[in-house]
Amino acid sequence: MDKHLEDYSHKRFNILTGEWVLVSPHRSKRPWQGQNEAVNNEKRPEYDESCYLCAGNTRISGDVNPKYTGTYVFTNDFAALQSDSPSFKVNDGLLQAESETGICKVICFSPDHSKSLADMDVPGITQVVKTWQKEYKEIGANDAIKYVQIFENKGAVMGCSNPHPHGQIWSQSSLPNEVSKKDTTQKAYFADKKSSLLGDYLKQELNGDRERIIFENDAFVVLIPFWAVWPFEAMIAPKNKQNSILDMTEKEAELYAEAISVLTKVYDKLFNTSFPYSSGIHQAPTDGGDNAHWHWHMSFYPPLLRSATVKKFMVGYEMFGTPQRDITAEGAAQRLRDLL
Amino acid sequence: MDKHLEDYSHKRFNILTGEWVLVSPHRSKRPWQGQNEAVNNEKRPEYDESCYLCAGNTRISGDVNPKYTGTYVFTNDFAALQSDSPSFKVNDGLLQAESETGICKVICFSPDHSKSLADMDVPGITQVVKTWQKEYKEIGANDAIKYVQIFENKGAVMGCSNPHPHGQIWSQSSLPNEVSKKDTTQKAYFADKKSSLLGDYLKQELNGDRERIIFENDAFVVLIPFWAVWPFEAMIAPKNKQNSILDMTEKEAELYAEAISVLTKVYDKLFNTSFPYSSGIHQAPTDGGDNAHWHWHMSFYPPLLRSATVKKFMVGYEMFGTPQRDITAEGAAQRLRDLL
Ligand SMILES: O=P(O)(O)O[C@H]1O[C@H](CO)[C@@H](O)[C@H](O)[C@H]1O
Ligand SMILES: O=P(O)(O)O[C@H]1O[C@H](CO)[C@@H](O)[C@H](O)[C@H]1O
Repeated sequence: MDKHLEDYSHKRFNILTGEWVLVSPHRSKRPWQGQNEAVNNEKRPEYDESCYLCAGNTRISGDVNPKYTGTYVFTNDFAALQSDSPSFKVNDGLLQAESETGICKVICFSPDHSKSLADMDVPGITQVVKTWQKEYKEIGANDAIKYVQIFENKGAVMGCSNPHPHGQIWSQSSLPNEVSKKDTTQKAYFADKKSSLLGDYLKQELNGDRERIIFENDAFVVLIPFWAVWPFEAMIAPKNKQNSILDMTEKEAELYAEAISVLTKVYDKLFNTSFPYSSGIHQAPTDGGDNAHWHWHMSFYPPLLRSATVKKFMVGYEMFGTPQRDITAEGAAQRLRDLL
Repeated sequence: MDKHLEDYSHKRFNILTGEWVLVSPHRSKRPWQGQNEAVNNEKRPEYDESCYLCAGNTRISGDVNPKYTGTYVFTNDFAALQSDSPSFKVNDGLLQAESETGICKVICFSPDHSKSLADMDVPGITQVVKTWQKEYKEIGANDAIKYVQIFENKGAVMGCSNPHPHGQIWSQSSLPNEVSKKDTTQKAYFADKKSSLLGDYLKQELNGDRERIIFENDAFVVLIPFWAVWPFEAMIAPKNKQNSILDMTEKEAELYAEAISVLTKVYDKLFNTSFPYSSGIHQAPTDGGDNAHWHWHMSFYPPLLRSATVKKFMVGYEMFGTPQRDITAEGAAQRLRDLL
């Protein structure tokens, strides 16, 4: 790799979003006198009677969770998107708005309140993967739903209000901003080269000096993308183009679960804490269109930078200018690889 | 206004960035069981001997601050961008990077450690405005600098590591992402209509039912834009198109300072706390090009949602999909207006 990238400020191009990230490698020497996050390494019980996600407990809506044993899915009691709201449009000069309908669900990954994905075994995570597949398929089959966003907020610092292992699905009647960007770039590349943009990138990484690769198995790569924004941001992607998570074989679903297990475990080791992050899957829209250009992938955006208590703040310059990072993708990958 | 916008989920279009925001008005009823922020309403002394921004104190670099009495500007000791780094380009298949040089400065707003902009008087804020003008002009005159980003991170929750009233300037050799987006939309509109996109929007707001307007004086409007993302996000903009802050008359600089004063004071009143935010000025690039389409404006992105301790988390769905808000721009404007 060009040695300049290790020492001098530069910007890197995100081929999927078409946007830039500013990298300031020398800046990690800056002392930190700002806010520290609370660490919560408290051991949780396997069952918590005050947890509204534990099996058998009553939620705020009055609904009672069944005594589930694997994963458990229900419609979000405070859904940001609803399926029964009226359709309308505001087109008043420079004020433009449109109704947005959708379905929001919560997915409990396990009845065990004490565990996170990092603590679950591969068969347990495989069950989560299969639940994502089932939901993506079912919700996506709804004519009113054009996109199904699967994500997880983990840790209080990521706005997660309940430590019980769970993720969410917000699905809606149009394409979200970030998905739109990736749709455009992948479509243009596929039209031009008849080949997957992300697939070609992964090939280049796998056949290069591999300095951003954390782990691979037969079907998946785990790596820090060249254009990563968050300090230890990582991506899990199938080596060969698959439009959505429905394209996985049984065996591949297990290999995907293995990749999730490896990454989340190494994250927890890094700062010896239950590592917070938001993760999300970007994949083909369910709009009935031609989505052959889509190569699905899962990204992890963890906020921690230096320790269990010091996070990266995406604030002033980042909000008004460009996301900025203080350590390189290569340095971050090295540190995670060393913990494998 | 269309009453649907008060009750049902919808998306609104940001005419300046070309992106959407998802609004879920019914969702503010959701109970909050997640992370609470620390409130820091501690009275600070006017001088703190351990503060590296106070007059007469020594910074980590060994430099000693002068006994300044108004504003004080110096080059950031841990600059994310440096002016003397080499020029290089990486163009290796799907890996694309470019060197980025720049100048980063810190601006102390006042020697008084105990004050924020909200506590300063209008003549004091006018001095800050004049300092911004001087820096934008001087830094922008440098051929290597194409954009001068002025911003402030206020409060520990916004990654601010020192409560001494101060802001920053990061200037660089290319246009940041957010500036690029606004450059494109304004240029297209100006080419088409020979008129300012933001100016026409402000006219529509001023001549409409004014439900998003918080304050106006002869030269400036303070409002919550129709497409605001953060709960109490606000914008200050000159009513008539000005490309940059250099276009203000002496009198207008004072009126701008008044607008900043009114907004920051009302923010502090809202939750009875020193209100955290990141603010930033978007204005004409200093690239020597034709920037007649630019209409400068200052935006405030405050994270608090419900109280001094409960903020809005821009996490999972927001990172992977679209920014989402729980209260409407109109409701937020009403609450701020009621405190004037
Ligand atoms: O420059 P500071 O105050 O040290 O740092 C703060 O502002 C910067 C610019 O928005 C951010 O990149 C940092 O994450 C934040 O902590
Ligand atoms: O849905 P939850 O867990 O109540 O809420 C959390 O995730 C949402 C989706 O990313 C965010 O909009 C909220 O700000 C966050 O607190």
